[in-house]
Amino acid sequence: MLPVKGIRLGTVEAGIRYADRRDLVVIEMAEGSRCAAVFTRNVFCAAPVQLARAHLQQTSPRYLLINTGNANAGTGEQGLLNAERSCEVLAQRVACTPQQVLPFSTGVIGEQLPMPVLEAGIQPALGTLDVDGWEAAAHGILTTDTVTKTCSRQMQVNGKTITLTGIAKGSGMIRPDMATMLSFIATDVDIEVKLLQDALRLAVDKSFNRITVDGDTSTNDACVLMATGCSGVSLAATDSAWSDFCQMLVELCVELAQAIIRDGEGATKFVTVTVAGGANSVECLAVADAIAHSPLVKTALFASDPNWGRILAAVGRAGVDDLDIARVDLYLGDVRIVCGGDPDPGYSEEQGQQVMSQDEITIRVDLGRGEVEESMWTCDFSYDYVRINAEYRS
Amino acid sequence: MLPVKGIRLGTVEAGIRYADRRDLVVIEMAEGSRCAAVFTRNVFCAAPVQLARAHLQQTSPRYLLINTGNANAGTGEQGLLNAERSCEVLAQRVACTPQQVLPFSTGVIGEQLPMPVLEAGIQPALGTLDVDGWEAAAHGILTTDTVTKTCSRQMQVNGKTITLTGIAKGSGMIRPDMATMLSFIATDVDIEVKLLQDALRLAVDKSFNRITVDGDTSTNDACVLMATGCSGVSLAATDSAWSDFCQMLVELCVELAQAIIRDGEGATKFVTVTVAGGANSVECLAVADAIAHSPLVKTALFASDPNWGRILAAVGRAGVDDLDIARVDLYLGDVRIVCGGDPDPGYSEEQGQQVMSQDEITIRVDLGRGEVEESMWTCDFSYDYVRINAEYRS
Repeated sequence: MLPVKGIRLGTVEAGIRYADRRDLVVIEMAEGSRCAAVFTRNVFCAAPVQLARAHLQQTSPRYLLINTGNANAGTGEQGLLNAERSCEVLAQRVACTPQQVLPFSTGVIGEQLPMPVLEAGIQPALGTLDVDGWEAAAHGILTTDTVTKTCSRQMQVNGKTITLTGIAKGSGMIRPDMATMLSFIATDVDIEVKLLQDALRLAVDKSFNRITVDGDTSTNDACVLMATGCSGVSLAATDSAWSDFCQMLVELCVELAQAIIRDGEGATKFVTVTVAGGANSVECLAVADAIAHSPLVKTALFASDPNWGRILAAVGRAGVDDLDIARVDLYLGDVRIVCGGDPDPGYSEEQGQQVMSQDEITIRVDLGRGEVEESMWTCDFSYDYVRINAEYRS
Repeated sequence: MLPVKGIRLGTVEAGIRYADRRDLVVIEMAEGSRCAAVFTRNVFCAAPVQLARAHLQQTSPRYLLINTGNANAGTGEQGLLNAERSCEVLAQRVACTPQQVLPFSTGVIGEQLPMPVLEAGIQPALGTLDVDGWEAAAHGILTTDTVTKTCSRQMQVNGKTITLTGIAKGSGMIRPDMATMLSFIATDVDIEVKLLQDALRLAVDKSFNRITVDGDTSTNDACVLMATGCSGVSLAATDSAWSDFCQMLVELCVELAQAIIRDGEGATKFVTVTVAGGANSVECLAVADAIAHSPLVKTALFASDPNWGRILAAVGRAGVDDLDIARVDLYLGDVRIVCGGDPDPGYSEEQGQQVMSQDEITIRVDLGRGEVEESMWTCDFSYDYVRINAEYRS
């Protein structure tokens, strides 16, 4: 991972829930940095999400404080007070205001934060702040993930190099009740905050909003984009390099999002669902969503069973107005199975079986009614998914 | 099961897919009977669904022809020709028109009907027509169900007894690709066809449309309501007994629908999800639907884990406008877990555990914003669900 000028990260084993596990991360932004964020749309959002939202409205943040092991969700008024208190403790140590600290939590729902342990960890975490602290932080934000999710990109703007680096966590939305998806991304470009927010929302819409393990949205999801300006490069919407930067951001977010799916709970397959030939994005995504969420399609994927009837049934119930099934084609990988709504006469079960036996599978539907194409990513549905999510919380 | 005057049923082992298994059913309605039907809304509906819909528009049916073992879905033009042919063969034998026969199929998707076998079974099935043929027919429409689903009710109208009897099949929507839900209900009342259709649609909306095993809608779903008039009782919308009849029909459909859930694929629990305090039915059902479909809630139910954070998260993402979480209460059985959006101080994990250990569980959410209450029924999500649906089609 490439460091980002103006960003330092500190990570410690505070002992929030488990011993010998990195579970507290502080991210520091250089003075003058801008910060954008996208949060869960779940109405039951956790205390830190409520507070981070409020702080972002009030001021420009200088610090992110992230703990794992406890989501501080479903914790009522006391949970909000605890989140505030953790921001205050950090702010006192670094001489900023509590509003300049954004809190993030992930882990068990419905228990209060162990405040003495958390507070005691803040000073040591600040003591480890380092521009090369990304790898440790990528570990420090994990809960039940089996691998870190990291990505770095660079591009040239007017002869200068700018850097974009991000980390993410997420496996199922909750395991057994360990929420959630979090991602922290930073660049050393100087970007006006409104523009930064627009770029982040667009990138999240094309990446994190297009993955599903189980369709459950957590109470703690958050994605943050920080821009320090320390590269000396400024970007405005009118710059020719702006769209290149936005594209780089989308690619980085897609890579992080796909890494979450590859590490999905119980996942044995990485599946791309592409819906082409749509009249608009909304209907393409509705069909992709119906396929990617179908337990029947996902158990067939687990079994490497080219059970195309289940895919067609998902297309048929996606709610696309006036869908003409006589124009629908379906492919597994490069193999056309359905042509014009009917079974392709040239298709043999062996061909479908060969595609389904692979670890990475593309399901492609052509609706035959337009030029728009959209993709989502998902994984299969295995015994391990049930096992992981049925294990008692202990 | 109580016989219905004017209805005879015949069932045989035709050998559509398996030997020694009842798989072909003929239901005969007395002349002058009326018939209403509700079909799957899936755009990819099977050939028999397309043909049954068309025949219902053209004439009053006299016969239903039902086969299991093969869904005749995803079978293109040939599938439609085969469905037509099967109606013609039956019509020739009984001297009615092919349009007076409604075909229904359930079983494997994507294979053509074995027409010689099916045709050869029609005459023997007609030979077994009997007013007491309900029990055999209830067996004959099953695929992967483990038990028959049957229900009978009677009521008095002006001193005369009228009867309502129904059978249903369905377990998952598809196993491995055995579609679907079917239900056939008959009464001996004389009811105008438009009124019969309205009553059926209302009853289905309150019963079969409120159950979910896996959220997948099949290509073959159908529910038929026949009214022979043979009891000598006529009912019109203005009769005081009409609303009683409609209520009896709703209750019968609810009982059959619940029987499908109790026999759900891999199900170990029967779960009622009740959402009260809503401003309208739509938002109550949206919340119930989010809970009843959540894989995380369903795996927690399988584990008998009172993981209320997952239920709240489902409530929070159900898309209810301006939901005030400070007014939301959550109960497991009679135990209040969340009060006004926060954990109930009086709740202990042991209480929740005690409720979750039962075979029948009620999850109750009060939205605190109105007087409307709605319920749905679902089951848990077990290893066996994955096993059943991952088994290769053989």
